[in-house]
Amino acid sequence: MAVNPDLQKERNSATFDSQKLTEFLYNGKDRVDRRRFVQNLVFQDEYLNSFKPWWNREREESYDTCVKRSIYLQQFMDKHGITKPEERAYVHQAAANEENDVIGLHKSMFIPTISRLGTKEQVEKYGVPAKQNKILGTYAQTELGHGTFIRGLETTATFDPSTQEFIINSPNVTSIKYWPGGGGKTCNYVILMAKLYTQGQSHGIHAFVVQTRSLKDHTPMPGVSVGDIGNKLGFSDMDNSFIKFDNYRVPKDAMLMRHAKVEVDGTYIPAKNSKITYGSMMNLRALIVGSCAVSLAQAATIATRYSAVRRQTEVRPGGEEAQVLDYQTQQEKLFPMIASAYAFMFVGRNILREFNRIMADMERGMLDEMQVLHALAAGMKAYCSDVTSYGVDKLRMACGGHGYTHASGIPKIWASATPACTYEGENTIMYLQCARYLVKQYGEAVKGKKLAGFMSYLNNPVQQRSSLDENFTFEHLVQAYEHAASRLIKAASLRIQSLMRIGSSSEEARNNSSVIMVKAAKAHCQVYIVKVFMEETLKSNMDTSVSKAMKTLCQLYATCGIYENLGNFIQDGFLSSKQADMVSNKMLSLFSEMRPNAVAFVDAFDYHDQVLQSCIGRYDGQVYQALYEYAKGSPLNKSDVHESYYTTLRPLMKGEYNITPAKL
Amino acid sequence: MAVNPDLQKERNSATFDSQKLTEFLYNGKDRVDRRRFVQNLVFQDEYLNSFKPWWNREREESYDTCVKRSIYLQQFMDKHGITKPEERAYVHQAAANEENDVIGLHKSMFIPTISRLGTKEQVEKYGVPAKQNKILGTYAQTELGHGTFIRGLETTATFDPSTQEFIINSPNVTSIKYWPGGGGKTCNYVILMAKLYTQGQSHGIHAFVVQTRSLKDHTPMPGVSVGDIGNKLGFSDMDNSFIKFDNYRVPKDAMLMRHAKVEVDGTYIPAKNSKITYGSMMNLRALIVGSCAVSLAQAATIATRYSAVRRQTEVRPGGEEAQVLDYQTQQEKLFPMIASAYAFMFVGRNILREFNRIMADMERGMLDEMQVLHALAAGMKAYCSDVTSYGVDKLRMACGGHGYTHASGIPKIWASATPACTYEGENTIMYLQCARYLVKQYGEAVKGKKLAGFMSYLNNPVQQRSSLDENFTFEHLVQAYEHAASRLIKAASLRIQSLMRIGSSSEEARNNSSVIMVKAAKAHCQVYIVKVFMEETLKSNMDTSVSKAMKTLCQLYATCGIYENLGNFIQDGFLSSKQADMVSNKMLSLFSEMRPNAVAFVDAFDYHDQVLQSCIGRYDGQVYQALYEYAKGSPLNKSDVHESYYTTLRPLMKGEYNITPAKL
Repeated sequence: MAVNPDLQKERNSATFDSQKLTEFLYNGKDRVDRRRFVQNLVFQDEYLNSFKPWWNREREESYDTCVKRSIYLQQFMDKHGITKPEERAYVHQAAANEENDVIGLHKSMFIPTISRLGTKEQVEKYGVPAKQNKILGTYAQTELGHGTFIRGLETTATFDPSTQEFIINSPNVTSIKYWPGGGGKTCNYVILMAKLYTQGQSHGIHAFVVQTRSLKDHTPMPGVSVGDIGNKLGFSDMDNSFIKFDNYRVPKDAMLMRHAKVEVDGTYIPAKNSKITYGSMMNLRALIVGSCAVSLAQAATIATRYSAVRRQTEVRPGGEEAQVLDYQTQQEKLFPMIASAYAFMFVGRNILREFNRIMADMERGMLDEMQVLHALAAGMKAYCSDVTSYGVDKLRMACGGHGYTHASGIPKIWASATPACTYEGENTIMYLQCARYLVKQYGEAVKGKKLAGFMSYLNNPVQQRSSLDENFTFEHLVQAYEHAASRLIKAASLRIQSLMRIGSSSEEARNNSSVIMVKAAKAHCQVYIVKVFMEETLKSNMDTSVSKAMKTLCQLYATCGIYENLGNFIQDGFLSSKQADMVSNKMLSLFSEMRPNAVAFVDAFDYHDQVLQSCIGRYDGQVYQALYEYAKGSPLNKSDVHESYYTTLRPLMKGEYNITPAKL
Repeated sequence: MAVNPDLQKERNSATFDSQKLTEFLYNGKDRVDRRRFVQNLVFQDEYLNSFKPWWNREREESYDTCVKRSIYLQQFMDKHGITKPEERAYVHQAAANEENDVIGLHKSMFIPTISRLGTKEQVEKYGVPAKQNKILGTYAQTELGHGTFIRGLETTATFDPSTQEFIINSPNVTSIKYWPGGGGKTCNYVILMAKLYTQGQSHGIHAFVVQTRSLKDHTPMPGVSVGDIGNKLGFSDMDNSFIKFDNYRVPKDAMLMRHAKVEVDGTYIPAKNSKITYGSMMNLRALIVGSCAVSLAQAATIATRYSAVRRQTEVRPGGEEAQVLDYQTQQEKLFPMIASAYAFMFVGRNILREFNRIMADMERGMLDEMQVLHALAAGMKAYCSDVTSYGVDKLRMACGGHGYTHASGIPKIWASATPACTYEGENTIMYLQCARYLVKQYGEAVKGKKLAGFMSYLNNPVQQRSSLDENFTFEHLVQAYEHAASRLIKAASLRIQSLMRIGSSSEEARNNSSVIMVKAAKAHCQVYIVKVFMEETLKSNMDTSVSKAMKTLCQLYATCGIYENLGNFIQDGFLSSKQADMVSNKMLSLFSEMRPNAVAFVDAFDYHDQVLQSCIGRYDGQVYQALYEYAKGSPLNKSDVHESYYTTLRPLMKGEYNITPAKL
């Protein structure tokens, strides 16, 4: 179909070539071409196109499709020689955007944990068949009654020297494993996190490789109850699981013993370095930031294109109805989210780079920066997933009623993005971990210690008044963010100290300051994002016209952030009343400046229609015909007259309905 | 089962009797008893208990259940003599909380519109059989391309004098009716809003009674395409519809002609009063405020009870894990929402009372207050549905991972509450309608006019500094809210004026000020809510201990509102830096004060377990056993080994998987 003229007009009037920005985003033309090439392979694949569309699948079909597609994709990528992680991610996106890989945890958690924590013999026994898909595993940590606080886990693994076995047990209902993805119907093995008991003593949480289903017929092992946990808000293609153990015996080599060990007589030998698993946790959190960016970018693409096509209310009586994109209130909903998507993309990559650098240092024994990174990854995971969960939903509502149907594609993006606020560390706890570090660093700075790298802004002399003027320079903007974060970190620190002075324990004092601590952590994350975004827009390998537009976008991001958290910036008079007015005026004028490039900015994300699967976010803007086709495909339209007419409506209308309450 | 001791402890230590508050909320002991009585009739009904639980229903089962239940409930209530609207609402809540009534619009829109706009003959022809359920109708206004802006509707009704018929047509894809509830498979009639053409002239939008399906066999009428619009985020039990007309002829008396008329020769006679339909729109918006309160109260009940039972992280190393409810950050998530639920309940009733009073005045020809009410209902509908949509989701996340499964009950509440942000007038447009009125009133006040009733705060002399002190009196709090609202209304007005001075049209100036206008409208709504909440807590018929707790809750509500929108209050120096600090300290100390009563406050809402249908919000707090039972009932657990093992997983594990990409 021809492109809707409103959308074509937007593309023609942009001040930069969106393709150039795409190339910047994906690191060059070659990679953009390769990305499109591998995604096209998927779009053209016959088998992958043979499934019912996701929006019409029922629960069992969802799961079944997920299994079939996940397994097929392995083979597909192997045959096509697609091996790089980023390219494999493009394939998954093309095949089933925002859907699950039923053996994803098998590859990302089961196999790597065995490699990292297992002895050579264990890698041979479990890791090798796992890599050959002869056994399929997942990772079982969370229990019904226990989440982020790992020491609270109650599943026990008790060593019995007489048989050289561990007895795995779920002593009570709160200890039942709950949530492990793929564990319900798919996997026959798990990495089980359980509390080790030997010689009558508890030795904390350790990892065990435990078989849950028979290799012969896939039935649950005697002593193991396992199944799916039932229907959820989203993730309906995934068999999240419950797993309950009833004094279930496993061989001694089930415990992964590269580091901690249990000897034949039950003697426990602890690991030398207990922080050994921090790395993969931080890595996962950095990856979440990147996936937040993708969700936000996709939802912003849909909402922005639709806003260019949708017309609503004549601006002048009798005149044509205006493009919704022309309304300032709509711009306020869309533009900060487009900017956030870019910001999070840059930040996600930046944290990964930092992670790799710091991990390399760590391997050389330099542990200094590990804590900075840990605090940053925790805070950023929380901040970006919060903004994304809230933002994607805001974008849905920016599409009016049509945002609510699955035809828009946005509810699916949201249902798949919002769990990131909870998994891999609940967000509030993440903010507090970050804040504890900030408060500690603040204490060091007060004592005169020079803080390293990104924390050094806490050493800056306190400026009483901002010099922000009409130019809204990056320098002034960063100063404002740094000032606000410093002030909040200081406020949290002082509150904790004063509560301790009047007799609170440090735990109580921290709990009674935690609302302020969370606020401080958020402000700290904002400093980081603003700085990274600015650095990125100043990169010299950007096309001139792209660079100009990106600077506006970045300025818009920073200015909106001040507007939305104005109290943080003016509470102590750092921004004056007049400067606060300037902020809102500047924000509104930046909306106008950004307006002609809105569609180009989202086009540059380069999400194919078959990735977005959205009637209203189509590249060609032919949204209404697509919505009509979507409707016609409803499962309720299989027949003109639905069965319930015969059972219920006809009797009612004919006066023959006679199911009356039994007890009268 | 016994009540979880943590929850029992909460109930024992509350400072008031929750039953007393329930009686205040529902207007006396008799009504509370009656409410429980009618809900119990439902809980005990055999037929209503015979349906599969909603969380395991697939799309077609959802719809079919909705039809069967909706029709049955009519008969049920008639037989039991349950006739009062509020009691019928309790029955619906008990039978299918947050689910739909498939003939709800038949009763609330189809029949009333015929009564209001039809002639005597039309009421006889259409209204009487509708009341007898011989025909079933819905209300078709929204089109694929047109929502809140009604004048934009494109469906045409052209009068043909030669046959004395109207020709109903959908001239293009954007004009297809989309969304009408129950119109897809259930109804055989609609009230159709269409653009009237006669004698070659357009006469704007009018209402027609149009048959869509055969009364004989329920098949769509020739010339009418009708069906369900497909799967959505929620509302899966409702057959929202598309309806397309292809030069479909209906008799002349299809047009409802009590007010506007078309004569036999096609002469058009307009209605005398074109604002005739405002009343029911305002009424609907007031009702939405009340239903927001219910959604928020139910979600708050679930999250608060769960937070009392859930334990997470030892506060002191080696100590017991703390109740999540003891964490300040958790209190910040829950308590403002509990307070909002109470506030919205009071506000919803207050607007309805105002509405009834003003409507009575209007019938006596006094139209003065109609505009105040219209602005208030628009703003409050937007504000309360915004807070509710965001708040229910926040409460879901406050339950950690378990909030995400349908076992928590919260996703369903949310999916059913969030559409209120869009229907009956999209929220941003509602805020702007409210703000236009405020800006107009501000202009009058500047000219020295004395404003009536609730708007009179715009006449107050501008106070430069707040007198707020440690007591946080209601008076000082209201002053702060009034000051902030006045200042924002003034800012919006001045911005519009200054843009017009430099040459903008009034439409452009308003659009370029709309972000500030929305902010002003929200601030205005907050003034209203805070005032109503305070009035309600000062009522003399409240039990003393309840009254004391309610005053704390109201103070907490008002203080949190300042904390969350601090910029509004300090931008012009009305609150000083020191007072701003006082606000956050006060908020935190109010959290502590409220803490012992949190469970009592949600118990007082009096939602039965069978209404909440939540594993984690149960009255007895036995959440983990309930979650485990829920899991076992998953549709994927019908068999121990799922079919996809045989088709896919076994071949994979045996090395026999061989579906390879076709094109290589």
